[in-house]
Amino acid sequence: MSDPVTIHICTSCRAEGEALEPREARAGSRLHAALTDAAGQDGAPSVRIIPVDCMSVCKRPVTVGFSAPGKWTYVYGDFANEPMDVSAATILDGAARFAATDDGLIPWKERPQALKKGVIARLPPAA
Amino acid sequence: MSDPVTIHICTSCRAEGEALEPREARAGSRLHAALTDAAGQDGAPSVRIIPVDCMSVCKRPVTVGFSAPGKWTYVYGDFANEPMDVSAATILDGAARFAATDDGLIPWKERPQALKKGVIARLPPAA
Repeated sequence: MSDPVTIHICTSCRAEGEALEPREARAGSRLHAALTDAAGQDGAPSVRIIPVDCMSVCKRPVTVGFSAPGKWTYVYGDFANEPMDVSAATILDGAARFAATDDGLIPWKERPQALKKGVIARLPPAA
Repeated sequence: MSDPVTIHICTSCRAEGEALEPREARAGSRLHAALTDAAGQDGAPSVRIIPVDCMSVCKRPVTVGFSAPGKWTYVYGDFANEPMDVSAATILDGAARFAATDDGLIPWKERPQALKKGVIARLPPAA
């Protein structure tokens, strides 16, 4: 068994045109709720979902990070471009594929489209 | 004493208009060389410099990451906007300030301008 994937999600992210308040109506908070719901369903991969009060990306909402011991860390964005339940399913699919790798590098052909287009940055495993 | 800061630097980054080859002429490789030189000088902060073959940012060359155990990880870009020796000095100054924090959060007023404008993403400490 591999370590569970940690999914960081920026709850401060606002979709284009969204108001500052209420904070729980922001795309980041709404995606966090959708992700938590989806992760609680039968068959969902084992993940740790950690809300973050700003991941400093801002221009590509919603921002999400995948990490696990010994693996590359990936930061993705643009998850406000689809309905929240669709993005939540994509993130969990990506997390399962990330968990299945030894190094965090999901083969290109296997990546959901959102993980091809949405990459913001990556960092190698801590050494 | 705090742990030394790990500086990841993307050696694949190309400044606008730069050729693909030779790879050692790319801005990322040139900044890596300048950074290694600067870090070897007397009085330079203790850092680990790790070249990375692509950090998947690409649009904001050169990309650099700061990390250390128990601290926020920061990814910065735009270090091809100044001469390489200037950027190298800025990065080492930033790394020293990062090392001096408990959590990786450099107070805003203390940040070099390049670390205010150049932030790409951040992630909380592994928990």
